Amino acid sequence: MNELRKDYLLDRWVIIASDRGKRPTDFVRKEIEEKPGFCYFCPGNEHTTPPEISRVEEGGKWIIRCFPNKYPATTTECGEIRENLLTKMPAYGRHEVVAETPNHGQHLDELSVDHLVKVLDMYSSRIKELKKDEKIRYVMVFKNQGKEAGASLDHSHTQIIALSVVPPLVKAETEAARKYGAERGSCPFCDIWRSEKDSERLIFEDENTIAFTPYASRFPFEAWIMPKRHVRTLEELSDLEKKSFAEMLKKILRRLHMSLNKPPYNFWLHHSPEDGDLHLHLELAPRLSSFAGMEYGSEVVINVIPPETAAFHYKQR
Amino acid sequence: MNELRKDYLLDRWVIIASDRGKRPTDFVRKEIEEKPGFCYFCPGNEHTTPPEISRVEEGGKWIIRCFPNKYPATTTECGEIRENLLTKMPAYGRHEVVAETPNHGQHLDELSVDHLVKVLDMYSSRIKELKKDEKIRYVMVFKNQGKEAGASLDHSHTQIIALSVVPPLVKAETEAARKYGAERGSCPFCDIWRSEKDSERLIFEDENTIAFTPYASRFPFEAWIMPKRHVRTLEELSDLEKKSFAEMLKKILRRLHMSLNKPPYNFWLHHSPEDGDLHLHLELAPRLSSFAGMEYGSEVVINVIPPETAAFHYKQR
Repeated sequence: MNELRKDYLLDRWVIIASDRGKRPTDFVRKEIEEKPGFCYFCPGNEHTTPPEISRVEEGGKWIIRCFPNKYPATTTECGEIRENLLTKMPAYGRHEVVAETPNHGQHLDELSVDHLVKVLDMYSSRIKELKKDEKIRYVMVFKNQGKEAGASLDHSHTQIIALSVVPPLVKAETEAARKYGAERGSCPFCDIWRSEKDSERLIFEDENTIAFTPYASRFPFEAWIMPKRHVRTLEELSDLEKKSFAEMLKKILRRLHMSLNKPPYNFWLHHSPEDGDLHLHLELAPRLSSFAGMEYGSEVVINVIPPETAAFHYKQR
Repeated sequence: MNELRKDYLLDRWVIIASDRGKRPTDFVRKEIEEKPGFCYFCPGNEHTTPPEISRVEEGGKWIIRCFPNKYPATTTECGEIRENLLTKMPAYGRHEVVAETPNHGQHLDELSVDHLVKVLDMYSSRIKELKKDEKIRYVMVFKNQGKEAGASLDHSHTQIIALSVVPPLVKAETEAARKYGAERGSCPFCDIWRSEKDSERLIFEDENTIAFTPYASRFPFEAWIMPKRHVRTLEELSDLEKKSFAEMLKKILRRLHMSLNKPPYNFWLHHSPEDGDLHLHLELAPRLSSFAGMEYGSEVVINVIPPETAAFHYKQR
């Protein structure tokens, strides 16, 4: 039976349309793009990116590299203009790119856990640095993998956008968590993982980290990775927790790649804004179907793969 | 300069990334798909759809036809289960399809204004009929045109989904309008069109209807069509207003098709829910770029075509 499910916290609804009879194997990716031509992110072409911000080296060569986005979505100007119904301001902030590997065509799940830990450290140090600017209210870290997921370049990379506003989704989650906490005296995300741990939606867990398909998944095979301890930011993770988080990310991406043949995906981090308390988590959204008129026009999402089916599929191989 | 713009009413932000230097002509569609094979919606194949609900005939043949979706996103069961953080219910409702033309390959803008008026009448009568069910809280009318816009079948059609919840976006708009009204004693949408009428975002207007690119457009070439009179539903439109609305829709779609070579698009209607007052309007979203990690993870949208450029482009030819 097709179900209408509410998000744990937000007024966000998903129709889990299992009656459509779609199977996970219907989503196995058929073609893998060729990747010919010049790559701006490959070693040797460092001069084609804006001047480097930071790098991690191994054996005298970079293995992770951070530099400004050549076509930033942000600007360095400030101000605000409000005119009755029209509010605008310069899109103040910073827009950076992290090439997580020097190897063209290498996917994130093919990196070692140690390497992935260093990628998380790079995110963390950039967030810390960018937040030193008092005008920055939030630092968004996200990855577009594959053309259908919005990546314009094939070489694996993450984007970091520092903004002068707290994004609506982060604001809504933080506000809902605050309200929940005031009513029940606990963090909803701590409660969510404890509840999902014993459900059909659990994918993997270890002592420090849990991965599950969220109850009202908006994307087929959507998965969340969360530290079990109430941690607000990447920076607050202990070394052990960070390693566990990296292992879980590698494992989930590996299963996704193996079972669906390297599908396009996005992931993003949600962490606490400066003035709020949000339990750190990573949301992974494989891009196997498109949002259409229903989704954009109503914000009710139709998802043909129940999260229970998705979790089973992640665990199968 | 890249700007951060707020939606007229909602806490929804868009980065208008004009610094990226994209031009409207960058979005001209290069290939048009072939449309071979069997079509369920063509005359002669009526037996392949679920039993017809309604039709409009001309010369003894149907020109518009409404029938249930073979793979509905909804179900006919009722109930609600709430279990701490997990809320779900059967996706109660109805899911219908309107084939707006018997001619395979014919686009909406190729229909006569009279024919389009009859399409609007079909929407209107289905909304009215579906609302008779007390459990229905909202009837969503939307169109997916083209594969990239989520259409699984080529033959032009609109979908109607009647739901037991008011969708979050409609709820948010209605609530924001109520609040605005309480503070200023007017309808924000009446104020919006009066303000946009004298802006660079105006596309076309006549005595009854206005079309403009919204200030915080989330999609390149997004356009809104709105009756000038404060009208809550399609049904409340006078014959003259309905004809004007149909003319405007035809004109806008025609310009979109001519200038960008029949790009994929969605549109949807926003109208008043049973217990609210929302100024009727149609939102048209050409699908020329993808939402990616930033958009899905933060709900801050990056749009590389400023609405002022889009409006200029609509008017040019």
